[in-house]
Amino acid sequence: MEKYPLFRHPSDNEPEESRGKLKDGPIELKNPHIQTMEEDVLYHLALSNKSHDLTEMFHDVKFVCFGGSPKRMEKFASFMAKELHLKIPAGMTLQNISHGSDRYVLYKVGPVLSVSHGMGIPSLSIVFHEILKLLHHAGCTDVKMFRLGTSGGLGLDPGTVVISEGAVDGLLRPYMEIATLGMILQHPAFLDKELNEELLTIAEELGFKAVIGKTMCTYDFYEGQARLDGAFCDFNEDHKMSFLKRIHERGIKNIEMESLCFAAMAFRARVKSAVLCCTIIDRLKGDQITASHEALEEWQERTQKIISRYVQKQLGMI
Amino acid sequence: MEKYPLFRHPSDNEPEESRGKLKDGPIELKNPHIQTMEEDVLYHLALSNKSHDLTEMFHDVKFVCFGGSPKRMEKFASFMAKELHLKIPAGMTLQNISHGSDRYVLYKVGPVLSVSHGMGIPSLSIVFHEILKLLHHAGCTDVKMFRLGTSGGLGLDPGTVVISEGAVDGLLRPYMEIATLGMILQHPAFLDKELNEELLTIAEELGFKAVIGKTMCTYDFYEGQARLDGAFCDFNEDHKMSFLKRIHERGIKNIEMESLCFAAMAFRARVKSAVLCCTIIDRLKGDQITASHEALEEWQERTQKIISRYVQKQLGMI
Repeated sequence: MEKYPLFRHPSDNEPEESRGKLKDGPIELKNPHIQTMEEDVLYHLALSNKSHDLTEMFHDVKFVCFGGSPKRMEKFASFMAKELHLKIPAGMTLQNISHGSDRYVLYKVGPVLSVSHGMGIPSLSIVFHEILKLLHHAGCTDVKMFRLGTSGGLGLDPGTVVISEGAVDGLLRPYMEIATLGMILQHPAFLDKELNEELLTIAEELGFKAVIGKTMCTYDFYEGQARLDGAFCDFNEDHKMSFLKRIHERGIKNIEMESLCFAAMAFRARVKSAVLCCTIIDRLKGDQITASHEALEEWQERTQKIISRYVQKQLGMI
Repeated sequence: MEKYPLFRHPSDNEPEESRGKLKDGPIELKNPHIQTMEEDVLYHLALSNKSHDLTEMFHDVKFVCFGGSPKRMEKFASFMAKELHLKIPAGMTLQNISHGSDRYVLYKVGPVLSVSHGMGIPSLSIVFHEILKLLHHAGCTDVKMFRLGTSGGLGLDPGTVVISEGAVDGLLRPYMEIATLGMILQHPAFLDKELNEELLTIAEELGFKAVIGKTMCTYDFYEGQARLDGAFCDFNEDHKMSFLKRIHERGIKNIEMESLCFAAMAFRARVKSAVLCCTIIDRLKGDQITASHEALEEWQERTQKIISRYVQKQLGMI
C-alpha cells in the first residue's frame, strides 16, 4: 500500500531522480486490490477481463484520445483510420466497442483508442479509471494520453488551439480534490512540458494559431465560468470582466471542464499526457457561443489534425 | 439583483411565511440579465428562443424527468407515451428535440419532458440551467422535476427504490459548492417532503420496496464512493467498511453522483422536485455491479413506473 504523507507532494515518496517525472513503460495501477480480484468488470465500458480477452483486443494501444462528444470521437476514429491507412476489410466497419453501454463510446484504430468522456470531471473520472484498468489488463506499454476538447478562450481569436501547460480549478488551485472516505485529498495536475512543445511545433507546421498556457477547469459552465447567461446569476458585467481579466493576467488562456481531472489522473498514473482545446469564443468579448456550425466543425478538427500528425510522426509514417 | 448575505441561509431573504418553501407558479429565473438579451441560445440543447418558438413547443410542460442515460430517457419517453395514451399520428414517431447536439437527449410527451443529464454534477448542471431557461421562455407554470436514477445502496436489497429526503456531499455537507468568481458559494440541497411522501405511497401501491432517506452525492465513482476497484486506491477493506457503516448509521441510504446538484438547483429555483434512485448493489456487501442485464432493466423501470403513476394521478387519469 503506497503511503501518502500529509502536507507533502505525492511525488516526494519517489526516488529523487524520478520524482514527479512521467515515464514510459507499463501501466502500473496504484491499487493493490485489483490483482486479487477474480474478475474486473469495467462496468461503464461494458467490458470485463473475464468476458473479454483484453490483451488480445488492446495490447498494441499506444495513444488514447479522449473527447467530450460521442459523435466527435466516432468521427475522430474514422478520421484516424484514413490517416493511418488502416485497411478495413470489405463488409466491415468501425464499431463502438462499448456498444453494450450508452455511457461512453470506445473505438480502436490500430494503436489509437478514441474515447468519449461526456462533460465535466466526474464523467471523465469514471472512464479514466476504467481505461487505465483496461490498459493495465491488456499489458500496454509506453502509452500517451490526450484530451481533445473545445473551450472558451481568454484574449485569443476563436479557432486558436490552447495546449495546457497545467490545469487549475476555479480558485487557481493546481490540484484536483477528491473527497475520499471523509478526507479531502489533493492530486496535483501537472502535464508534460516536452510533449507540449512537440505538439506546439506540429500545430505551427499545420498553420494553426496555437499557444501553451494555463487552463482553468470548472465544475459549472455558467456561474463557474463567470457567464451572465445561466438560469442563476448574482453578479454583473463589471464583476465578470474584472474576474476574467484578473485570471487572464495570471496566465489563464482558456476555461473548460475536464483538464484538472485529466492532468491529475494521468500524472498520478505517471502517464505522459496533454490537453489540447480549440477555443470557440473569446470570453473577454462575450458569453454565448454563436459561431456557425461550419466554423465550429473546422475549429474542432484542428486538435484532431495535430494529434494525427503527432501519431504519424511517432509511427515513423512521416 | 438579489442580495445574498454571508453566513445566512438564502431563504432568509424571503418573507417569513414563504421562507424556504417551494411553490407552484411560473418559473422565475434568478438572473436579471436574461431579459435584456436579444437571443438566448440554449447551446447544449441546440435550441434558442429566437430560432424556435419555445412557448408553442413547451408551454404545457408540467413534469420534467431527468436521468443519466440517453437510451433510458428515450425508452422512458416511449413508455410515457403509452402510459398517457398519447396519440402519435401514423407515419410519425417521437423525436429527440435536441438532435442538433449530441450532449443530451430531450423528448416531449404531452406535459412530460424526458431529458438525459449524463454522469456527474457538472454534466447535470449544464442541462439543468438550460432546461430552467427553456421553461421560463416557454412560460411554463407549476412544474415539478424528477431525477430517475440508479445508485449503490447501503443495507438495502438491490431493487429497492430510495426517495431522497435530502442530499449531502462526500463529507456529509448538505449543500453544493460552486466556485463563483473566486468565491466558494454554498447552495443548500433541500427536497420536498410532501412530494416524497406521495411518491412513497405510490411505490408501495406498486408493490416496490421503497424508503425515504438521505443520499450521498460524490464527484468520483471509485475512491469518492469508497470502492476498492478503481485504478487508484490507497485504503483497504477495513477503512472502506468503517466509512460506509459510519455514513449508514447517520442515515445515508444510497450513494450516487447528481442528487446534490439536482436538489440544490431545484431548491434555488423554488421548483418542487424529487430524486428517486433504484439501488443496483448493496455497497455493504461489495463494489462491482454484477447483477444480470434483465434484473438491472427491471429495477430501472421501477422509478419510471412510480413517476408514470404520479403523473397519471396528477392528470386525473386514475
